[in-house]
Formats: sequence, C-alpha cells, structure tokens
Amino acid sequence: MRLYHPQRIPRSVIPENQEFPMLSLSSQITPEALHYVRNHFPYPYLPAHDWHLNVEGCVRNPLQLSYNDLINMPQVTLPVTLECSGNKRAFYEPKVRGEQWELGAVSHALWTGVRLREILQSTGILSEAQEIIFEGMDSGQRTDMPGTFIYSRSLPIYKAIHPDTLIALFMNGKPLPYKHGYPARLIVPGWYGMASVKWLQRIIVSDRPFQGPYQKIDYIVYPSDPNQSPRPVTVMKVNSVIAQPTDRAVLKKGTHHVFGAAWSGEVPVSKIQINLDDEETWYPATWIDPEERYSWRRWIWEWHASKAGTYLLKSKATDSNGNTQPLHGEWNAKGYENNSIHQIVVYVE
Amino acid sequence: MRLYHPQRIPRSVIPENQEFPMLSLSSQITPEALHYVRNHFPYPYLPAHDWHLNVEGCVRNPLQLSYNDLINMPQVTLPVTLECSGNKRAFYEPKVRGEQWELGAVSHALWTGVRLREILQSTGILSEAQEIIFEGMDSGQRTDMPGTFIYSRSLPIYKAIHPDTLIALFMNGKPLPYKHGYPARLIVPGWYGMASVKWLQRIIVSDRPFQGPYQKIDYIVYPSDPNQSPRPVTVMKVNSVIAQPTDRAVLKKGTHHVFGAAWSGEVPVSKIQINLDDEETWYPATWIDPEERYSWRRWIWEWHASKAGTYLLKSKATDSNGNTQPLHGEWNAKGYENNSIHQIVVYVE
Repeated sequence: MRLYHPQRIPRSVIPENQEFPMLSLSSQITPEALHYVRNHFPYPYLPAHDWHLNVEGCVRNPLQLSYNDLINMPQVTLPVTLECSGNKRAFYEPKVRGEQWELGAVSHALWTGVRLREILQSTGILSEAQEIIFEGMDSGQRTDMPGTFIYSRSLPIYKAIHPDTLIALFMNGKPLPYKHGYPARLIVPGWYGMASVKWLQRIIVSDRPFQGPYQKIDYIVYPSDPNQSPRPVTVMKVNSVIAQPTDRAVLKKGTHHVFGAAWSGEVPVSKIQINLDDEETWYPATWIDPEERYSWRRWIWEWHASKAGTYLLKSKATDSNGNTQPLHGEWNAKGYENNSIHQIVVYVE
Repeated sequence: MRLYHPQRIPRSVIPENQEFPMLSLSSQITPEALHYVRNHFPYPYLPAHDWHLNVEGCVRNPLQLSYNDLINMPQVTLPVTLECSGNKRAFYEPKVRGEQWELGAVSHALWTGVRLREILQSTGILSEAQEIIFEGMDSGQRTDMPGTFIYSRSLPIYKAIHPDTLIALFMNGKPLPYKHGYPARLIVPGWYGMASVKWLQRIIVSDRPFQGPYQKIDYIVYPSDPNQSPRPVTVMKVNSVIAQPTDRAVLKKGTHHVFGAAWSGEVPVSKIQINLDDEETWYPATWIDPEERYSWRRWIWEWHASKAGTYLLKSKATDSNGNTQPLHGEWNAKGYENNSIHQIVVYVE
C-alpha cells in the first residue's frame, strides 16, 4: 500500500492547471502524474487514426509525418526542467491577475524524441524564412477578445534548429501521456514552458513575425518602469525553492535538513546558498544532483537549530553565467518570471 | 477516461495533511478520496486480527467490543460537515505558525455507525464520571516536549451522550477508508474535526478533566486580548467560501455563476449573501442544498458582469441562530476558528 500519496495541486479545473507538489520533491525526475500541467484550453480531442504532423510554409519540400515516421527517426533523450513563466506569480506584490501559481509550476523529466533540425533539414527552409510557428490541437476562447484561438507559438530560427530542440514522443521512457501532449510535443530546453507546444499538429515556416495572441499579448513582460520596452518571455531565469520545511512549519530543536531544488535556463545552475535571519553570511548548501545544462538540481543544507525561536530562511541560486536571484523578482503587469529569492519562516520549539 | 481529475492539496507529507480542493466542489457529498485529511502523526499500524474497542474507567461493566459486535448494533447514518479548526489559518494576519490551511480543510460526508450513547448505556456510567476520553491508535512525537503521545481527546458527557455522536464504521456507504479512521472513528457532529478521533482503540470514562496535550495545549484559543481567558475549541463557527471563480481569476464580460458552500456548527446555515466591491448591498445567493443541521450547503449567485474592471467579491453566511461571519475572524495565537468573510478579487476583461 502506498500510504503517502502526493498529488498535484489544482489551480483551475477547466482548463486544468495543476502544480507539482514541491513539498514532496524526492526524486530528481518528476513522475509523469506529478509533473505540473499548464493548459490554456480544455483538453483537445485527438484524431483516432490519422494523426499527422504537417510541416509547411517557406520550405522546399512540405512534409506530412505520421507517428511511425517520427518513431522511426533517430531518437534523442534529454533531461529538461520545464517551468511555467507564471511560476511564483502568487508571491508578487502587488498581486497580479491570472493563475496563482505558487512554488510548483516547475518539474523535471526525461524527454525523448526527434531533433526538430532533422525534420527542418529534410524539408529545407527557404531564405525568406524568419520564424517557425508551432500549432497545437488545443483551442478555445479568450477573455479579452471574441473568437476561437488555437494555441500556437513561434520560435526564432536559431532556437528551432538548435540540436537540443526536440519533437518529443516519450516522457520518462514512456509514450507521452495524453495530458503532456500525446502524440507529439515540442520541447524547447532552457525556455519557459509556454514555448513547448503540446499536441502538435502543424509546423509552419513563416516569412514574417508571428502575431498570435499567445505570442504578442500573453507571454510579454511589461516592465513596471515605463522607460523599459515590453519584451517577450524566452529563457528561464535562475531560480530556487525550499521544498522542506514548508513555510510556517513548527520544528523541534535539533538538526534539520533544509532541502530544495535550483535551476536556470540555458546554462546549468552552479551555486546554491542559504541565509538565516538576514545575517550577512550565506551558507553554501550541498548539491545532491550533478551540474547539468537544462536540469534542476536538488540541494540539501544541514541546519543545527539549537535555540527555540522564529527563523527566516532564504535560498539563493547562481548559474554558471553568474546570474543570481534578486531579493524581489522584477514585478511586471502579467506576473511572469518571478525568480525572487525564496523565503520561509519556521518556528523552533 | 476521467479527464479532469481533482486531487487533494498537500500541506505536509508526514504526517499527511491534505485539503479538499475547494475549486472542484461539485457534489454536496465529498468523495472519500477528496475528503480532507488531517493527521497529527504518521498513519498507525492496525492489528491484523484482534482489533477491539475497549470501554473502561468509571463504568459499571467494562466492555470489549469487536468489529462484529459494532456491526451488529443498530446503525445510524448522518450527513456531517467536518472542518479542521485550523482551516483558513493561512489567511490570518499576522501569520500564525502551523499547517497553512487555506480554504479546503472542510468536507462533507455521510457517516454511518453506532450511537455512542448506546454503548455507554450498556456499560453504565458511574456518578463520579466527568468526561469521556477517546484514544486513537496513532501516536508520535511533539515538537514542544519529549516523549511519545497517543492522539487522545475528551468530550463532556452531554456531548458524548448526544444521540448524534457516533462511533462511525462507514463513510459514504462504504467501510471507513484506512486514512479516515478504519475500523472505527468518532464522529462529533457540529464540533471542529479534532474531536472526531480516528482509529479508535479505547474509550475511558474519567472522573477528572483530561490533561492530554491535544486537549490542554493544542486546540485552545488564546485570544489576542489578554483580558480574555483561553478557551477550548469546540463548536464550529458559521463560515462560507467562494469555490468558483478562484482568487485573481480573469473572466470574460457576461454572466458568471459565483458558486460556493456555507456551513455552521450545531445549527443549520440559513442565509448566504454576496457583496460586490464594498457596496452597501448584500445580495442573497440561492441555495442548492436544503437546510440541514450539520450539513454544508452549496449556493450559487448569478453575476452579470457587464463592465470590464477589477471586482472584489465577498460571501457571508448566517446560521439559524443569527450568528454571522465577521469581516476578520478573531485572531488567536494558534490560528484556530478563522471564519472571516471570504474575499476574492476577479478581473473582467
């Protein structure tokens, strides 16, 4: 009997948005059933028989790939941490509209599939190509304008042809679960999750910048400083979280293991530090998982809590480019990219 | 395929504490797998064969009841809303230590079992009896003092012999799930959940007030006003919650159904009102479920949101004794009994 049964934390019912329960972080790889899910629309109906991935637009040879075609191409496996760009939105002050993600709109899985560049090499890309557009099978309404919209996003060509950008068919060694994009999804390592389009049905090589609402309205950082220009959400910022203990927990006097995860975008995370009670010293925590591009790393810090009292604990990660977490993430109107230093309060009795 | 699969919200791993996901409230009766669980200790080992419920202390005829003995007694079924006294603790300001329950440490189920008074009638109670103590099979450590403690609570005799106080064997028509107290648990309708001891192993009729830490240290309201005396947590306060929409949700212009639940303690909840943007008017919502002692009632309110903007929504319940929810629950050091009016902010585009 599996007594303790962690489950995802629901944030909305339809579309289904659920967090990974960060307090139950135990393995580096997130089991499929616990991997966060972020949907913009109700789950799509899948064609029972004749699913194809169409590759078209500014290409020399348009292609229609079957599931078997994809399965028979060379497969690559990459461990990738995906994070929703709205992760930690609930902690922005002032509060921001939208899904109130707390800590767990981030997870880590093994993704196996075909390099997108291989497919684009076989179609060829015409010289006027500017972007690659990815269409999912999920569609629905928006609150801000009438009409039905397909979830679609574009990538610049340099990222689309990067050898690590995959059309994934497998998650943690098994065919993609339906909720994670079966039969095929995009995986864009190092970028926030909105780029990794699920339930792929069409790839369009385009000669102009894509104007879809999930490209030009959502996933844009509107800085609070009006002198700064809006910019699209792309690469994940360095971030970390304390998984255990949880905020406001009551602990016994003695030794405790403060435990969590840290990650960055296109470079590995290299340093993790813990701070106690706003003292100047930042203590280095110990990595559990090795340094690896695109992968979160669990860390642990042994804390000898010998005196009763109230303690403020913080975690701060630094990546191999030297980027580090700010005390307060850069507040923006849509609440993206919150990579504030994580803070919790615990009580020792 | 069950596409949308609500799950409990974890608040701690061991002991396992999980909320009902209030945003997925659909039926009045909470399915067993979604009913909130609140444990003080790891789950207990159950004896494989020879479980008995001992009834002893100041009684004429001590009893040892087998599961079959209990099953063969007359069974009563009662719908009962159970609420953890720490529900909504996360919303107290200043923040309070302990499990950060948000909205869902409350659920509603059908409980079937034997009237406790029947058992006490067959043992007889001696005249020196003052309280009835209930021992669970779960035990473990506390943070504030050394030793191993069994989860035990007492009831005053008037509540123990109330015809609605049950030794429950069934939940929603099925044998009690292990996590909800199999083989037998106490159900104390109208009182906060700490009274409804799970995994019962012993009932002790006592000639003095019980001094266990879950009676005399925890589940005591220490008011912020030092002139007020501490008092034990007993009867549930009138309370309500908006289940849908969720806080900070973004809605389309048009008609929306604001939907939730309301409950009280030993009397039914009778009135539910919605307030918009701090206007003076409180609008009556419509009950979905009938008025019933011990039962939460779902309610719905049709909101015509014709103008874009930011809206503050509040729900306020009143019970049949005229008790109503305050704007701010009575803050207390251990964070119990928060029955503040529920407030959410939503955005209409």
